[in-house]
Formats: sequence, structure tokens, C-alpha cells
Amino acid sequence: MRDDLGAFVAGPRVTAAGAATGPLAGWTFAAKDLFDVQGHVTGCGNPDWARTHTAAGSTAWCVQRLLDAGATLVGKTVTDEISLGLLGINRFDGTPINPRAPGRVAGGSSSGSAAAVAGGLADVALGTDSGGSVRIPSSFTGLYGLRPTHGAIPVDGLMTQSPSFDTVGFFAADAARLLALGRVLLPPGTDTRFDELLVATDAFALADAVVRDGLQPAVQRIGLATRDVTLAPEGILEWCRQQRLLQSFEFGRTFADWVDRTNPRFSLEVARSLVGAAAVQHLDLGEARAVRAQATARLESLLGSNRLLCLPTAPVLPIRRDASLSEMGAACDRIIELTCIAGLAGLPQINLPWAQTADGIPIGLSLIGPRGSDLALLAWAAAH
Amino acid sequence: MRDDLGAFVAGPRVTAAGAATGPLAGWTFAAKDLFDVQGHVTGCGNPDWARTHTAAGSTAWCVQRLLDAGATLVGKTVTDEISLGLLGINRFDGTPINPRAPGRVAGGSSSGSAAAVAGGLADVALGTDSGGSVRIPSSFTGLYGLRPTHGAIPVDGLMTQSPSFDTVGFFAADAARLLALGRVLLPPGTDTRFDELLVATDAFALADAVVRDGLQPAVQRIGLATRDVTLAPEGILEWCRQQRLLQSFEFGRTFADWVDRTNPRFSLEVARSLVGAAAVQHLDLGEARAVRAQATARLESLLGSNRLLCLPTAPVLPIRRDASLSEMGAACDRIIELTCIAGLAGLPQINLPWAQTADGIPIGLSLIGPRGSDLALLAWAAAH
Repeated sequence: MRDDLGAFVAGPRVTAAGAATGPLAGWTFAAKDLFDVQGHVTGCGNPDWARTHTAAGSTAWCVQRLLDAGATLVGKTVTDEISLGLLGINRFDGTPINPRAPGRVAGGSSSGSAAAVAGGLADVALGTDSGGSVRIPSSFTGLYGLRPTHGAIPVDGLMTQSPSFDTVGFFAADAARLLALGRVLLPPGTDTRFDELLVATDAFALADAVVRDGLQPAVQRIGLATRDVTLAPEGILEWCRQQRLLQSFEFGRTFADWVDRTNPRFSLEVARSLVGAAAVQHLDLGEARAVRAQATARLESLLGSNRLLCLPTAPVLPIRRDASLSEMGAACDRIIELTCIAGLAGLPQINLPWAQTADGIPIGLSLIGPRGSDLALLAWAAAH
Repeated sequence: MRDDLGAFVAGPRVTAAGAATGPLAGWTFAAKDLFDVQGHVTGCGNPDWARTHTAAGSTAWCVQRLLDAGATLVGKTVTDEISLGLLGINRFDGTPINPRAPGRVAGGSSSGSAAAVAGGLADVALGTDSGGSVRIPSSFTGLYGLRPTHGAIPVDGLMTQSPSFDTVGFFAADAARLLALGRVLLPPGTDTRFDELLVATDAFALADAVVRDGLQPAVQRIGLATRDVTLAPEGILEWCRQQRLLQSFEFGRTFADWVDRTNPRFSLEVARSLVGAAAVQHLDLGEARAVRAQATARLESLLGSNRLLCLPTAPVLPIRRDASLSEMGAACDRIIELTCIAGLAGLPQINLPWAQTADGIPIGLSLIGPRGSDLALLAWAAAH
């Protein structure tokens, strides 16, 4: 399978049989190599992480939950190094191929999970999303993908990155499977009936024309009463700036001791994020936390309990696999401008693979729902 | 040999027989893996550099000069990644062992060259010194080592780091060999008779007590009339700050295109230097250049044509091989406070391995001489 798509991590293949019966009996799944599987080292996409960690003593809650529901683990998948990346480029384990656009990246950091599902190597896959790491690869590879409400799915047994942003997300090629997976992983939700679609004009304005124009038919397809809104009176770029500071602060703190002890090897893309994070440790984050609270209140007020918000998942198409470091940086800077929104507020966001360019490159449309509406979002998608 | 001391680079062993006759006939030498040898890739201590460069079309001037003088190349040696380091730690090729202090680093970036000579694997070795990369490993491994006058030895056929600082230096276990090597590599000099020793009190004040006190007998041994001087009325730390800016600017520019194209893997120690260098590209360096000119004029005025300046080569003992990244950074910060002096002014500096701790850890004493006095410095050392 690695030979086909470069989707599975280096080292011994990790598999585990699912229970004989259950809602997912007979399904296959892959898990990003941030999730623990008992008896195996969780490599987190970096050789020095793997070298300095021992085999997991138990299996991550989510992985066990899927096994118990009958799904069989067929492999652990490539991730951007220690999950710090949005493009899916890994200079150690290899950059997974995007089955829908082979010359372009699959998106990250849950790159191998998306590649595995998009390439038909697994029915569904687990990823994580702190800054966009399920949303972006699902958009780039043309999959349904959910970043859930922050805190809705336990993060036990997986690598911490930025605790106030970290979520467990998942991928499927169709909305019915995504819903079935959600029913296994998510707490039971209230029965929400969405009655209005808010179109985030300031978010669409940040997207390239090919994305903005390409998504218009998908927006029409949603079929709800529509209203244009401005998300951020102070500007989305201000939300983005503060989200980056907060997330940098958190992952800088998460990795500081290990980095200091280990002097790990990283691609420069990842190293510069960590170097930047070290500088954030000395900033006053009071303003950033205030902006986060404002953004959260603003989004909650817009969404109420029955509204959906739509925006492009990514403002750009997947970049070429051989892009330069500056092109990579520029793409990430753009991407975070839109992924910061649900990230700051901890709200659920689903990617709908409903559009593509004339050349067949996927363009993802996102819906953000009210806090805790995850299952309702999945059910809505499955009904459309 | 690699098994003995970890001094030689990974990959195929590079050797070349010396001429049958010549002043170095029968000698062996090793060359840092920044020097080209025709038909071999110059790896520069980083796997992505090696991967993105082709075999050298010709042999570096210095290497050819030694071969023509009768010395045989017995191997290319480990260097800190793309020469950016002062400790001799390389997370890809391995960290050469310091034969004089096996639990401690050998110093860098010409770490393998120093380790090879100190361990008896080669009679002499070539290194490079931009910010201290011959001076520090010779101090840490107890060797004679010369950083020559900037421009005195051609840099053809070796990796450029920081053009206005880059020099070719060399190591030997005794001063007679260092002199013989210098006669092959350096232009003929004037016959200088040194008549006064200036003791740089502000440089000694920056050293740890174990270094400062340990060097006192060595200073006495020099045997010249002695005068205490203050090198930098504005403070050596100001010289250091400006030297770092200038060198960062230069190596940032040197590597920028390759880094951008390649997104190379580095240890975080090296990556953070490159990230810092990218920031320097936007600074106004006018003040730094003015300080460099002042420092040069000050040192030239102190040295005249017949005086020597003595200072500790390094203000600290070699740190432990397993030091943390913050300990590594702190040690480098200290080291540059003293190596910046000859570096800024482009003056020759010789390390004399004349002292050690009670435990046998080498403590190097340095002499800086007037511009172009390189051969006179070597002859003086050989006579003492």
C-alpha cells in the first residue's frame, strides 16, 4: 500500500482486527501516526520523536472505539512532523500522493489518512485537527471530513499539540460513512434542524477566484434560505493573527522540553514554526485571548442553535508537491486565514467535497455549525 | 577509522595518494567534507546538501596543494551541518569523539578534522574557520590550529559560508608540522620578530575561572615583554553582536536559494541559525559594518607590525556530548564573544595547546598576530 500511495508510515505495518460484530463490522480504517496502538511506537512523523519514545502501553480511545465497533485497522498513516503543517509534506516519511491531483500535495497534517481514503486503501480514517489538519486534507483530496466541536471526542492516547485547539477528526469518501463513524465516536447530540445558511462574505473574499467561483454551485446546492454576513468586524486577518499566536504558544510549550533535550532534526518548514513558537513564549497573550473570546461570542451569536455558516475550506488550491519553501509558507499563511475561524471558537466544521476545477482538482466547501451540532451536521450532509 | 573515532563522514571513503616527493611526502591528511575532491559529492554534513549536489568536477586548491606536496588524503571528515556550528555536534553524520575528553564535544565545525588528528588517524587536517571552526576544535582537542589571515589561502573548491569571514585553516599535533603545512599553503611572509605580548584583559574577563586561571602558566611561557590592554573600549560584547549580525547576513544570503528550493532537514540547532539569518536580511547593517571597521582599526593599531595579542581561545571548556539545546546555545553564545575578535578583523589566530585542567581537558591559548604574519606566527610557535 505504501508503494501505491505513500500513505502509510515507515517502519513495521501496524494492524489490528476489529470486533466480529458492531456498527462498523467489516469496515477498514487507517489512523494517523499520532494515535497510540498498544505495543507500537507512535512515530508522529519524525524520526527523533520515534527514537525518543517507547512503545505505547495502551491503545488510543478512538482507535479502540473503532475496533470495538467492528472496524479493522489496516495501517498507521504519514503525518506532517509532530503534526506541524497544513500541506502534507514530510521530508522524512515521504509526502503522500494526492489521488485526486497527483502533482499536488494532499494537505496536512493528516495527509496519509486522507490519501489512504481518497485512494481506496481504507474505508475511513482518523486524523487530528488543531489548525486545519483534517479540514485541509479533506478539501484537497475531495473527501468528507469533520473537525468536531473541541472536546467532543476524547484525545486520550494521542500526541498533544495545542490543547485548547486539538481535536480528533475523521475522513470518509461519502457522507453516510462519515455519519456512521460519527455515531461511534461522538456523544449523542440533540436533534437540530438547520433553517438558515449564513454565507461568510469576508471569508469568501479571502479566497482565490478559482475557489470562490468554483464553489458557487455548491453553495446553491445547500438549499437553505441564505443570508450574507460579515464574520469579523475587526477583520478575519486579526483573528488569524491571534489564533497563530495562541496556537504557537501552546505547541511551543508542548514540545519545549523534548526539543531542548533532543535537538531534533526537522525540515526547515517545521523548524521555523518551532523557532517562532519559542519567541511567542515571551509575549503577553492577553489581547489574543480577548480576541478569541470576542470571535467565539460573535460566531455563537451568528449561529444561534439552528443556523449554518458556509465558507471555503481553503482559500487556495493544493500547491505543487515540489513547491519551494516560500511558496509553502505563503500557502499556509493563506490557509490559516480561514481555518482559524472554527479553530478559535472550537466549533464543528465539515468539509463537503462538492466542487472541483475543470481539471478535476477538488475544491472543498465548509459548513460550520453550532457547538455540539456535530452529529446533526453529519446527518444533514448524509441527507444531501 | 570511523568506528574508532567517528571522525570520518558517512558514505564511501574518499582517499587520494600524494605525490612521491615533496615537503610533505609520506604524510597523511584528512579534509573536512566542505572541500571538493574530484569525482565525489561534497556532503557538507547534511544529507539534503549531498542529495542536491553532484560530484565535484575538480579538487579544491588546498587539497590539491597538499597532494602535490606529497601528503596522502586518508579521508573526508565530519563537519557541523553546512559548517553552522561551533560544538561539533552533527545529528546526521554523528558527533566525532573528542579523544582528549571522550564525554565532551570535539568543537566545530571542523570537528572530524580535529578528532582525526587528535586521535592519530591523520598527521594533519584541513578545516575551515568562519566564526571559530578551526580555533574551537583545536582548543577543545588539544591541537595546534591556525585560522589564517582572511584571504591568505584560496577558498577555491570549497563550500562558501560567509565570504567576508571564510578562511581555510588547519590542524596538527605539533607546531613543527603546522609550520610545514603553512609553508605549503600560505604565501611567503615577511620575517617578523615579535617583541611584545599584549594580554587582552577584557577577553580574559569573559572566560570561566577554570579557563582564565588554567591559562596563566601558558601566558608566562610565551616569554615576551607583557602589557595588559583593553581591546574594545565599547565592549567586546558589542563587537560580538555586530559580528553575529554580519555573519548571519552573509550565510543567510549564501544559503537562501538552496534552502528555499530544498526545505532541507536540519537539527534544530542549525535550523534556528538559518531562521535567525532570514530575519537579518531586513536589518540595516550600516552600524555593524562601522563597528567592524572600528574593531579592525583598533586591533591593527594595538598589534602594529611586531606585537602579539593573547586571549583564551574559548571562554569555556568543551561541553558534554549530551548537552541540551539550551546548553549548546549558551556555550555558543559565550564562544563567539572571543572568536568574533579575529573574525571581525580578518587577522590570523593560532591556538596553542599549552594548558589543561587537572582532569586533562585541554584549554587553548590563542595568539592573534598582525595581518599577514601567519608564517611568522607558525615559526614562532615551532620555536617555542
